Amino acid sequence: MSDHGFKRVALIGLGLIGGSIAWAARRHQDRPEFIGFARSEATRETTRKLGFCDEVADTAVDAVKDADLVILCVPVGAMAAVAAEIGPHLKQGCVVSDVGSVKGAVVEALSGLPDDVHVVPAHPMAGTEHSGPESGFAELYDNRYTLVTPIEGGDPEAVARLCAFWRSLGAIVEEMELVRHDLVCAVVSHAPHLIAYTMIGVADDLSRVTESEVIKYSAAGFRDFTRIAASDPTMWRDVFLSNKTATLEILGRFTEELFALQRAVRTGDGDYLFDYFTRTRAIRQGIIDAGQDTAAPNFGRDPAPKAED
Amino acid sequence: MSDHGFKRVALIGLGLIGGSIAWAARRHQDRPEFIGFARSEATRETTRKLGFCDEVADTAVDAVKDADLVILCVPVGAMAAVAAEIGPHLKQGCVVSDVGSVKGAVVEALSGLPDDVHVVPAHPMAGTEHSGPESGFAELYDNRYTLVTPIEGGDPEAVARLCAFWRSLGAIVEEMELVRHDLVCAVVSHAPHLIAYTMIGVADDLSRVTESEVIKYSAAGFRDFTRIAASDPTMWRDVFLSNKTATLEILGRFTEELFALQRAVRTGDGDYLFDYFTRTRAIRQGIIDAGQDTAAPNFGRDPAPKAED
Repeated sequence: MSDHGFKRVALIGLGLIGGSIAWAARRHQDRPEFIGFARSEATRETTRKLGFCDEVADTAVDAVKDADLVILCVPVGAMAAVAAEIGPHLKQGCVVSDVGSVKGAVVEALSGLPDDVHVVPAHPMAGTEHSGPESGFAELYDNRYTLVTPIEGGDPEAVARLCAFWRSLGAIVEEMELVRHDLVCAVVSHAPHLIAYTMIGVADDLSRVTESEVIKYSAAGFRDFTRIAASDPTMWRDVFLSNKTATLEILGRFTEELFALQRAVRTGDGDYLFDYFTRTRAIRQGIIDAGQDTAAPNFGRDPAPKAED
Repeated sequence: MSDHGFKRVALIGLGLIGGSIAWAARRHQDRPEFIGFARSEATRETTRKLGFCDEVADTAVDAVKDADLVILCVPVGAMAAVAAEIGPHLKQGCVVSDVGSVKGAVVEALSGLPDDVHVVPAHPMAGTEHSGPESGFAELYDNRYTLVTPIEGGDPEAVARLCAFWRSLGAIVEEMELVRHDLVCAVVSHAPHLIAYTMIGVADDLSRVTESEVIKYSAAGFRDFTRIAASDPTMWRDVFLSNKTATLEILGRFTEELFALQRAVRTGDGDYLFDYFTRTRAIRQGIIDAGQDTAAPNFGRDPAPKAED
């Protein structure tokens, strides 16, 4: 048996994240059994066809009853309702985890679970702009961070087992304090997403003026924004509503900075702009040096540069 | 001879854009001769080594004197000084063009050139976040738009020849009115770049709080912003200063939208957020349908999804 010791894992929610958990685990012979549930009949049907779960249950209660690990792979806003439904049917001593991008709100949502189960929140920091049961793939978590955020007074053994489980999926696992998690994610993920959504919205309004030109000439920078603004709307609505304080704080700082740059443009302060842009360029290099992105021009989607004719 | 008829092309500026022009042309046997000049001795030396120009001149005047096409591949802010220097030495009847991202300011900068040369501004909408003489490559313009923005009272034959030249480099060429060009580019390129720069700046300030976490977890969305914020600082300083009006107008609309979304987060208006995010997702699909970007998750930089285990 793997060192996490889980034999039967219930996945509640069978989209990109849940599906990829099962696909990732299936790369090993020595793997737990997966039983899946999704609210939508169509998703359950697709999952049966794709075959990434060993069983697909028709209710969440059926899915969890014999599981020793239950992972909630549903939007943060749906977790409280799922917890209320499955709570009375959980196996004693089982571990209940999730994959939400916000942790404070998840702990709140799971606070009504019975005392004899172990809640261990986690956040795999991986994803794509695609969603649904067909979007999962085995390599999604490989060499990506999964942050585990233990709750106060939680069971250290349950935490260790969940960390081992995520490592078995290919992830780099780190523990982080809950509140810090939500602030860091507001900076690296939540605020950038909201800003990208905003820019696309502006362009959409203007496209009545510029017709299809916005799409036609999008390669000039705009298309990079559209990718992150194409992520699942339900998930992101819930992220912003449940990480409100940290998101609003970062957006406040963003607006301050934007106004300073706008003023430099308006007053023609070229030195301010040049210094600013030189500093931000260095950060890109830091990300490439840290192995967090490709150095290939345009993310490698264009043909590679040639050294010779 | 190619249908553009240019036999000797002078490139003033030998970075990503200038270098790629020469590399692209060198794919054809029937190509003009290229003579290059760059202000920096180091750039001239590197260009000689790389060999993408047939000749590298030590002064801009030497470079242009026998050329029938002169292309200014320098930042928009440097064009007036170059024009003043080369103006008296241009060959009668030659075509003078540029590659600037802003057209109104370029026309202004070139207004002092002699009456017996033909000014035809152009803007190849292609690039990467890399710069310098080593960054050019032959395929940069393939199937990318180059916008040609004729000046009032300009010579139609000179315009037609420049269009033919860009087509010979692989570009899709379209003509556009000057003022419209500057507005469209503010939407698809200039404002997105300024916003990306701003977000990176905010993260940089906060990284004193969050240490290296911003870089470590950048894959969560932030890294997409850093790519476009890694572009050449001098070029972008000049773009914002020279397309001030259109950029400030788009930023004004951006701020309005951002405040509306921020208010929805603050008041917990989930429907507003959901509807907004659903609308922006559709725009991504439009860009993919138009062939302007890849549909592969994360721009294809991660492993491809698998249909089967």
